[in-house]
Amino acid sequence: MRFAAFAARAAKQSLSPYEYEPASLRPQDVEIQISHCGICHSDLHLIDNDWSSSTYPLVPGHEIVGTVMTVGGDCSLAVGQRVGVGWQRSACFDCEQCRAGAENLCARQEATCVGHMGGFARHIRLDGRFVFPLPESLDAAGAAPLLCAGVTVFAPLRRWGVVAGAQVGVIGIGGLGHLALRFLRAMGCETTAFSSSPDKRDAAERLGAHHVVSSTSVREVRSNGNRFDFLLCTAPARLDWITYLETLKPNGVLCLVGAPPGLLQIPAAQLLSTQRAICGSDIGSRNAIRETLAFAAEHGIAAQVETTPMADVNAALQRVRENRVRYRMVLTN
Amino acid sequence: MRFAAFAARAAKQSLSPYEYEPASLRPQDVEIQISHCGICHSDLHLIDNDWSSSTYPLVPGHEIVGTVMTVGGDCSLAVGQRVGVGWQRSACFDCEQCRAGAENLCARQEATCVGHMGGFARHIRLDGRFVFPLPESLDAAGAAPLLCAGVTVFAPLRRWGVVAGAQVGVIGIGGLGHLALRFLRAMGCETTAFSSSPDKRDAAERLGAHHVVSSTSVREVRSNGNRFDFLLCTAPARLDWITYLETLKPNGVLCLVGAPPGLLQIPAAQLLSTQRAICGSDIGSRNAIRETLAFAAEHGIAAQVETTPMADVNAALQRVRENRVRYRMVLTN
Repeated sequence: MRFAAFAARAAKQSLSPYEYEPASLRPQDVEIQISHCGICHSDLHLIDNDWSSSTYPLVPGHEIVGTVMTVGGDCSLAVGQRVGVGWQRSACFDCEQCRAGAENLCARQEATCVGHMGGFARHIRLDGRFVFPLPESLDAAGAAPLLCAGVTVFAPLRRWGVVAGAQVGVIGIGGLGHLALRFLRAMGCETTAFSSSPDKRDAAERLGAHHVVSSTSVREVRSNGNRFDFLLCTAPARLDWITYLETLKPNGVLCLVGAPPGLLQIPAAQLLSTQRAICGSDIGSRNAIRETLAFAAEHGIAAQVETTPMADVNAALQRVRENRVRYRMVLTN
Repeated sequence: MRFAAFAARAAKQSLSPYEYEPASLRPQDVEIQISHCGICHSDLHLIDNDWSSSTYPLVPGHEIVGTVMTVGGDCSLAVGQRVGVGWQRSACFDCEQCRAGAENLCARQEATCVGHMGGFARHIRLDGRFVFPLPESLDAAGAAPLLCAGVTVFAPLRRWGVVAGAQVGVIGIGGLGHLALRFLRAMGCETTAFSSSPDKRDAAERLGAHHVVSSTSVREVRSNGNRFDFLLCTAPARLDWITYLETLKPNGVLCLVGAPPGLLQIPAAQLLSTQRAICGSDIGSRNAIRETLAFAAEHGIAAQVETTPMADVNAALQRVRENRVRYRMVLTN
């Protein structure tokens, strides 16, 4: 059986129908019939070859929800099970990071749609160890973005010990940021949303923010001086880092999950006298994905999505490019 | 009684004998007869008014060891007790940081020799809550630098969870770095010293380093790629931060305890994909000072010092300015 998908044939091109012969099913593999696939900004970067890593035809898509159709002999999943797949599709299971349960930091990892055919398709075949059972209560469309956007914001909150009562700021209220607000509200944190869009003020409050600050007003940002235990930056934008660092309490942490262009330029003294830290975080381990899904199920958290039939993928991509989606676009089969 | 001291009368001037009338003894205060006082680079910055915070006459000195002569009615120390004093002499005991036991981050803290008369003197009078009993086994001269240099490197190792078996790099083998090497050896870490001085290679090994790398050779630094769990930078120098960050493992931490001039310029992507962090650390809390002294006593750790009679303070300061001291200068009365 050939797999039906949508592929870009060259950088920055529209997607068009594409069929490919999947690799044969290995013992650890699973074949999934895809019902939903979210669109992440990374998919646009891959289509456009922004990271110079793309090969064409390129089938994007790494926020996949579907149903198990076939399993290899060593796979613990069951036919008929509802499952999800995120950014990562393999790891060496042999390096220090893999041994530590941080296979998202494995240097030999492979991504679901880099050099492999991704989730803008009817089916996908991959290692079942990177396929996650979906808790029953989760709606498929609202759960798809949890597999990448969700774990990307959830994992650093756990790793850095963000606890109930903490003051947390979220910069950028989009696909990642809106999920961060929902998680943080459920965690019992007091959250402040920083957004450049005035129309997102009421929306941010509905998503769980206790306070909303205009990220384009230096004065408003400054008025939050010495406030946050943790500041999660989901905006891949060049910000006034010095001003944002001043919003951290002593021992506070600025965590980047979106990659801003250019260099961070920070006076070392700003880190020293207050013991502040700047760090990055990158998706999450398999355990972090399971924790994200379980927490979302427990607290009734889903992404706020727009859905579009996969046949209209190009129109959907265009809406994502124009930042018009509130807050995640999910393609449906 | 007037206190005899050595003071700078103006920025960048030599020190000369100076007498002052101490503030009257408050119930919480203690009066110490000073036997030893280390010279820290901060003392030079204060003498030179590099931080625009100095007032003159200025009596430097904040690595003080001495004997309790008089105690106020609320002070738990005893006359005759051997004690030490570090950088900090007061805190508000009322703010979030003080309440959290991080009074070294109190915004209203005062420093021993900023706006107060420091340890280049025969006596000092200050709040006994910032005066620390010295474990009996510690030699006074070798212990004096533990009060500032020692806690400055010890505190971040504890706070960031550096454990036995960890791979740790120490950049800069001077007053702070040489103590870091000794602490890390006693903690059971595998340590690498980065030094710009070829003559410190053997010395670094004697101090406990398992490996020594020339910090001036980009090639040598690069050959340590992906190696360290923790990298402690004690050098107040502009370094090739991008190359040093690459020596960290995923989830590794670069901790600055010396303030390099200018801006840290870091591509955000370098933090993201490997979850590295950059942080600063600033002296330590009162508990951290007590832990530093106790650990040093338990493991027989002292600073390697040169001693000079306090009357020769200007010659001693000159040796510090020329970076000729191995590794800490201590003035004696």
